[in-house]
Amino acid sequence: MTAYTHDTVPTQFVEANGIRFAYRRFGRTGGFPIVMNLHFRGTMDHWDPAVTDGLAKQREVILFDNAGIGASSGKTPASVPAMATDAIAFIKALGINKADILGYSIGGKVAQEIAVQAPGLVRKLILVGTGPRGADTAASKSAEIFSATYDPPEHLWIAAHFPPSPAGHASGLRYLERKHRRKDRGPEVSEASAAAQMQAIIKSNEKTDGVLNYLAEIHHPVLVVDGSNDLIIPTINGFTLQQHLPNAQLIIYPDSSHGPFYQYPELFLAHAALFLDA
Amino acid sequence: MTAYTHDTVPTQFVEANGIRFAYRRFGRTGGFPIVMNLHFRGTMDHWDPAVTDGLAKQREVILFDNAGIGASSGKTPASVPAMATDAIAFIKALGINKADILGYSIGGKVAQEIAVQAPGLVRKLILVGTGPRGADTAASKSAEIFSATYDPPEHLWIAAHFPPSPAGHASGLRYLERKHRRKDRGPEVSEASAAAQMQAIIKSNEKTDGVLNYLAEIHHPVLVVDGSNDLIIPTINGFTLQQHLPNAQLIIYPDSSHGPFYQYPELFLAHAALFLDA
Repeated sequence: MTAYTHDTVPTQFVEANGIRFAYRRFGRTGGFPIVMNLHFRGTMDHWDPAVTDGLAKQREVILFDNAGIGASSGKTPASVPAMATDAIAFIKALGINKADILGYSIGGKVAQEIAVQAPGLVRKLILVGTGPRGADTAASKSAEIFSATYDPPEHLWIAAHFPPSPAGHASGLRYLERKHRRKDRGPEVSEASAAAQMQAIIKSNEKTDGVLNYLAEIHHPVLVVDGSNDLIIPTINGFTLQQHLPNAQLIIYPDSSHGPFYQYPELFLAHAALFLDA
Repeated sequence: MTAYTHDTVPTQFVEANGIRFAYRRFGRTGGFPIVMNLHFRGTMDHWDPAVTDGLAKQREVILFDNAGIGASSGKTPASVPAMATDAIAFIKALGINKADILGYSIGGKVAQEIAVQAPGLVRKLILVGTGPRGADTAASKSAEIFSATYDPPEHLWIAAHFPPSPAGHASGLRYLERKHRRKDRGPEVSEASAAAQMQAIIKSNEKTDGVLNYLAEIHHPVLVVDGSNDLIIPTINGFTLQQHLPNAQLIIYPDSSHGPFYQYPELFLAHAALFLDA
């Protein structure tokens, strides 16, 4: 157990695939680390410390910026499978041969592709606020939420992660407060990288015959976590993941949107521990 | 804390609504008791001791036979709301003014109607393997499962509660072993009562305009628990409950059917404790 926390852990760098990956590693050593894959326009600084520090009490937590994101070099690919290839190179460069993988939103799509491309590298998957390839985005409010203006601007993340209820807004304010505690922050996602991410998302969501078939090949234990009304990646996609993955548990929280684990961090940590320690 | 367990607790009787209700009460006193409402053709003797004894470690557990079932007198009504009226009379006759209510299958339908008819009597609801009024039963295999013959006959309950996988069958055998440990057993459900239950289920599942509207009025915290492929009340109904109840959490377990909590009793008990003790 290092003494580091989300707020104090220094950023380190490792080279792989010609990319200099920025990462932070902290928490209780000795078991399987959990590698965290983040959402659209998110960097290591966007994770909720309530979640990362909570996970770090029981296991090693690895945050990183994928290629072209935040403090990492390289170019953000316009394809989710290519993002997974980069993530796998990063994990292996740390000398890790088996890890738990958590993915949030597009990070959940990356996590699935990691499991497809390198099944032996993955012990268990946690997928939060995400969907399968060919996701049903008909009811998504993503375009409206990301194109609106906010005062202050960081309230975008309240709209993106939390439900419009008073309790949801209050949770959002608490999340922002926790997130801004850390002073040593990397650069935000560039417009070019965000555009590549958006292209990757659109491509991943294309509906083709048999688009869900790949899920039958992900035999890892999976915990799918969703909000009751995910405004970014509609909640039905979590149900679809559970129904098509051979070994998946689904948990949906009440009065929540895209960031259920930021809204109910203690409950999520308890559920995640039951799943990871089983 | 009484020293009684599922296997040793004596059957008691209480009069209400002109019915002599048979019940068993055990576990840790001092908090809110949990009142258990059972499935089609089920009596107190059908509960899984792994679940009831597990719940009893932290709270008082009350098993009972509703009107016309098992060791209780009276006539089984051909309507779920009427069953709830009887259950409410039973709970009040015990001098209880607030309880947690667990309902399994048709018992989950009764639990919802208890919350509708006597909201002040209910603290929290746990709904397992059930659906709302107007449930979607298109994919149900209930008729086939309950009309088939089994050797030995009690293997009906493996088919009704567990998935057809090898792991599911093994779980089913363990459940039957646990269930048959208790020697002091009441009578099984009569054919007349089973016919009334079936009429009640059919009536409850009628699809009418706004049939789901009542769910918006159940403001209690609800935990909905489902198997990944519920062959009796299809899993989509758990998702529908979560989506229409104002304050519901949904948990779906992998490789499971109508009896997910009998298949994963330890995980269910942990999830239930997180929910009930929150």
